[in-house]
Amino acid sequence: MIRVGIVGGTGYTGVELLRLLAMHEGVEVVTITSRAEAGRRVDEQFPNLRGYYQLAFAEPDPGVLASCDLVFFATPHNVAMQLVPELLAAGTRIVDLSADYRIRDAALWSQWYGEPHASPDLLAHAVYGLPEVNREQIRQAQLVACPGCYPTAIQLGWIPLLARGLVAPEGLIASAASGASGAGRQAKVDNLLSETAGSFKAYGAAGHRHLPEIEQGLGDVAGGPVAVTFVPHLLPIVRGIHATLFARLLASPPDLQALFEDYYRDEPFVDVLPAGVLPQTRTVKGANRCQLSVIVPQQRDTVVVLSVIDNLVKGASGQAVQNMNIMFGLPETAGLEQIGLLP
Amino acid sequence: MIRVGIVGGTGYTGVELLRLLAMHEGVEVVTITSRAEAGRRVDEQFPNLRGYYQLAFAEPDPGVLASCDLVFFATPHNVAMQLVPELLAAGTRIVDLSADYRIRDAALWSQWYGEPHASPDLLAHAVYGLPEVNREQIRQAQLVACPGCYPTAIQLGWIPLLARGLVAPEGLIASAASGASGAGRQAKVDNLLSETAGSFKAYGAAGHRHLPEIEQGLGDVAGGPVAVTFVPHLLPIVRGIHATLFARLLASPPDLQALFEDYYRDEPFVDVLPAGVLPQTRTVKGANRCQLSVIVPQQRDTVVVLSVIDNLVKGASGQAVQNMNIMFGLPETAGLEQIGLLP
Amino acid sequence: MIRVGIVGGTGYTGVELLRLLAMHEGVEVVTITSRAEAGRRVDEQFPNLRGYYQLAFAEPDPGVLASCDLVFFATPHNVAMQLVPELLAAGTRIVDLSADYRIRDAALWSQWYGEPHASPDLLAHAVYGLPEVNREQIRQAQLVACPGCYPTAIQLGWIPLLARGLVAPEGLIASAASGASGAGRQAKVDNLLSETAGSFKAYGAAGHRHLPEIEQGLGDVAGGPVAVTFVPHLLPIVRGIHATLFARLLASPPDLQALFEDYYRDEPFVDVLPAGVLPQTRTVKGANRCQLSVIVPQQRDTVVVLSVIDNLVKGASGQAVQNMNIMFGLPETAGLEQIGLLP
Amino acid sequence: MIRVGIVGGTGYTGVELLRLLAMHEGVEVVTITSRAEAGRRVDEQFPNLRGYYQLAFAEPDPGVLASCDLVFFATPHNVAMQLVPELLAAGTRIVDLSADYRIRDAALWSQWYGEPHASPDLLAHAVYGLPEVNREQIRQAQLVACPGCYPTAIQLGWIPLLARGLVAPEGLIASAASGASGAGRQAKVDNLLSETAGSFKAYGAAGHRHLPEIEQGLGDVAGGPVAVTFVPHLLPIVRGIHATLFARLLASPPDLQALFEDYYRDEPFVDVLPAGVLPQTRTVKGANRCQLSVIVPQQRDTVVVLSVIDNLVKGASGQAVQNMNIMFGLPETAGLEQIGLLP
Repeated sequence: MIRVGIVGGTGYTGVELLRLLAMHEGVEVVTITSRAEAGRRVDEQFPNLRGYYQLAFAEPDPGVLASCDLVFFATPHNVAMQLVPELLAAGTRIVDLSADYRIRDAALWSQWYGEPHASPDLLAHAVYGLPEVNREQIRQAQLVACPGCYPTAIQLGWIPLLARGLVAPEGLIASAASGASGAGRQAKVDNLLSETAGSFKAYGAAGHRHLPEIEQGLGDVAGGPVAVTFVPHLLPIVRGIHATLFARLLASPPDLQALFEDYYRDEPFVDVLPAGVLPQTRTVKGANRCQLSVIVPQQRDTVVVLSVIDNLVKGASGQAVQNMNIMFGLPETAGLEQIGLLP
Repeated sequence: MIRVGIVGGTGYTGVELLRLLAMHEGVEVVTITSRAEAGRRVDEQFPNLRGYYQLAFAEPDPGVLASCDLVFFATPHNVAMQLVPELLAAGTRIVDLSADYRIRDAALWSQWYGEPHASPDLLAHAVYGLPEVNREQIRQAQLVACPGCYPTAIQLGWIPLLARGLVAPEGLIASAASGASGAGRQAKVDNLLSETAGSFKAYGAAGHRHLPEIEQGLGDVAGGPVAVTFVPHLLPIVRGIHATLFARLLASPPDLQALFEDYYRDEPFVDVLPAGVLPQTRTVKGANRCQLSVIVPQQRDTVVVLSVIDNLVKGASGQAVQNMNIMFGLPETAGLEQIGLLP
Repeated sequence: MIRVGIVGGTGYTGVELLRLLAMHEGVEVVTITSRAEAGRRVDEQFPNLRGYYQLAFAEPDPGVLASCDLVFFATPHNVAMQLVPELLAAGTRIVDLSADYRIRDAALWSQWYGEPHASPDLLAHAVYGLPEVNREQIRQAQLVACPGCYPTAIQLGWIPLLARGLVAPEGLIASAASGASGAGRQAKVDNLLSETAGSFKAYGAAGHRHLPEIEQGLGDVAGGPVAVTFVPHLLPIVRGIHATLFARLLASPPDLQALFEDYYRDEPFVDVLPAGVLPQTRTVKGANRCQLSVIVPQQRDTVVVLSVIDNLVKGASGQAVQNMNIMFGLPETAGLEQIGLLP
Repeated sequence: MIRVGIVGGTGYTGVELLRLLAMHEGVEVVTITSRAEAGRRVDEQFPNLRGYYQLAFAEPDPGVLASCDLVFFATPHNVAMQLVPELLAAGTRIVDLSADYRIRDAALWSQWYGEPHASPDLLAHAVYGLPEVNREQIRQAQLVACPGCYPTAIQLGWIPLLARGLVAPEGLIASAASGASGAGRQAKVDNLLSETAGSFKAYGAAGHRHLPEIEQGLGDVAGGPVAVTFVPHLLPIVRGIHATLFARLLASPPDLQALFEDYYRDEPFVDVLPAGVLPQTRTVKGANRCQLSVIVPQQRDTVVVLSVIDNLVKGASGQAVQNMNIMFGLPETAGLEQIGLLP
């Protein structure tokens, strides 16, 4: 049994980790921390978990965390980077769901997150936890930076095209939309049902923190710089990310449907839909799965890729468990066999 | 392995059976029928199932169905009662999710469903598949009539009070609300998103087909006739039933919280919430679970019970699998360990 | 032109007052106050108002408010009762949308609101602003206490029955549901879209602050005490209240459809639907209208009344404008001709 | 008083016309046709209209329609083009909300709509009813083809840039999303709440019928061919269109905020939001208004325009009334002063 700790258990990625780990036969959750809710039973906060956990939230205790085989950070940015150095030193492996270790360039990180990085020396040691790209490095990693939700959906959509050099790496356009759970479980007027239901809007169009992560990841695949215009939108739904990706084809392309199917043939959690079928966020709700379609409208020179994930699963907690499975040599699908809840 | 057939696979209870059975290690789905979609792969219709089934919908074939150990009917009423006699004769056991065998009195059935019953002689042999009431009879049953969604939520809420004789059996009042999936996957203007989203309404207030089923079941528990005023409402959500139940206390009651907790202590799928916590439909979404609260507002003489289920799980397909497990001597929770998807 | 001030302009009843008053030809909005947003243009906060107002939010200025003909309080409770005495003394008339002057008994008010009343001597002078009951008193009133949203929907549904003595005044049961805007524009986790969308729940079942107001109002109509069991629920929609009301008939009733139609024949904002048509919250969205149905299911002894309003219009700001019109001798429908937004 | 007829009154654009015209003091609705609902009162179908209309739906009667000053066609395509020639001959003016006269090239129309055009000779006489482009021609027009919903939002967003020659006319990218009412009031499984709520998807990505209309209109403005990649999406909301528009700047641009504000300064229904404010569909709900923002993310060479409308108002019935006002010399805003319903 892998002994697991969770730092920051009261948010949506925390409860989602608990949901997935309850179904994972190889894991024992030893501690789940929350300063605000310390002492409260987790199933009181999240009644869907009644019967699955006897745990209460605890103050973060470095000794208890260091005794774990793996600690998940399900925290806002700027928490993990304070605690990770000590835990790594104690031999505990880390999967960080926050943004702290996603960007290799500390200066770039500081520019987007507005503060200095607390452990910049670790950035070079962190492995970016997108298994479809970095599976081998993840196996040995002590510190995995789990990708953001938008970056997961967007990178999986474009990787086959950029890896094959089929599209112009500048001028990439990503119009993406997220369910409200992506904004976390925080009391903000903007996220009230009365402010969001029955409506749709873009936000962060002038610059969203996921942009440098997307450009870094795609640049690695393309073998050179890429430039992405990224406009996120807020959907009046709880779960789901949908990315609509546009790129300019450099030449008359091969059979893109076949190319995508080949590219992801062995990936357990990336599913290229049959030609003519377009993805919906609902078909992956609750599942650790990315579903993709590729189209060339009007046979012109713009290729459109559509990519959906559940932001809390393949976009966060499910991918975190997938990383854990790889790190500990477990079957990659362990605990992740949940089928999308449709309807 | 139990060989299972499903008649009527294109509706919401059909796809939900497939979702649950895919996670059930003791079951093989042999056939799933649909006249309208015969030949089409089930995962083309329901892309959440991609990777879990290779099946295509088939025309109903009596020989294939008769070769099954169990056949689920996930059909509108008036289908099962045509086919069940032949299948029973062949030794196939039946779990009927439709209304055909829920009401013991054929005349009453005809009055509410507007046509004669096709196999009235079987009504006496059918077991009403509410395990919390009829678990022992279900074990041996050849034909189980799976309860309706509203009747499940409502009966589980009132049973402890009626069984103990604590409330007046006449004058029971049930104000209940269902997600739109309860109306099925049928093309009707009234069920369009544009007709239902952002709105709430009562329907069937003058008489809903679940009323006689509710009164029959509660009458059995109370040991005499009960009279229920039942007003269903349509919620602008996909899944979930919430029942708000009012009854007049006959005397100063005992500790109702303790009574409910005791009554359901050994039930794996009925969860009495702690005092002061009220249920939400979202905490049971996707789970085979009923969550209950009991309150006596202002310490007056009206007791309020709140009861929630997922109409497609404990209100239909999950309860059907629960019945199957009991009939075949499997652990009652097999395939039903799904945790509610929150948020 | 009536010179109007609004205290507390940043909430939903504030913006709704502005929407309605922009269409009202006899009104000039002189000031709208908000300490938190002082200096910010109202159309920056509420872009739907762009082009209709040049105002910015202002600190509350007693002199400016006292110079108004009418001041609306669109505030939480415990604000109006601090300021109203001074304004009344200056001759300014008041429509208070908050709870401060709804309950005549100061001790009862304190019991439910948890603090002493700041101007209990004014309670006897306040007129309860339900025009269908108190139109004549409203004409002369200096201080109108605008009814709560649930109390409006519930009282309008039961008044014809209680006024005629047709139902038992004890044992009244109200199962009602409100859109999330009823909870106001406050940053609370419980009101996030991610906590409420796709779900339904009861709340305040042990006792909601609207209960004493409902019982007071209905008691006045019934000519004696009434007892109501009131269970409110939260709908995952923005606007709308639906009340499902149950009462025990004291005798075989007259033609209730005709009774309701007669009772409300001359009311401009109460609409009894034809027999067989049930109300929906969406048909009154944005409109100052209550739509009602009355049914006796199974011809038993329980009568069901269904009542819908838009909680922000007939349940708050529209009713406030209706009261203003009556107080100032304007046509009662002035500024209130908005048609429900369907779909 | 303008005598108005409406052909096709049972859909969403029909009821929306009725809502707007009820508030229009210069119009009398003489007839509203529906073969399916002939004889049924319109306020029975649409209870929000109770008290505003005494009309019943009627069979289309050419004599009655010809007696009108103006006939609106609120029909699917292929209805207006059958009846318009006769009505024009009788001197009746037409505003067609359907697609029949939007595309000048009959062959192109046939290619996208799959049938020959029934009155191709009229295409040259029809005026494309986007007042912001064609106001002068609309004044004299006998036949106005009201723009589609997506084309309205998209063209208004790009027109200032294309008219000034600031962006590359090829490689335009439009990612747009519509509420479900855009699909009309038709019984289709795909539009059920259970199929769409809580989800998001693209559709028609390989080619949507609004594409040739968009390219025709923008080509006129640009003075030469344009090429648009247009991907529409379905939002789980009732009303609203949001277009996210991407174009490549040809040179370092002028102050685009000032350019947009200048361009639309005199337009009553196009509202350029202040810099830094992004539009939301909810702020224009029920209003005949387009709100726009323009951004250049990261100061790179891609300009993003965000454009929102209510698809049933500025995207259909409101724009139709706006055209009528222009055609009959009325104030352009008559009947269109509705403020967006927020929240």
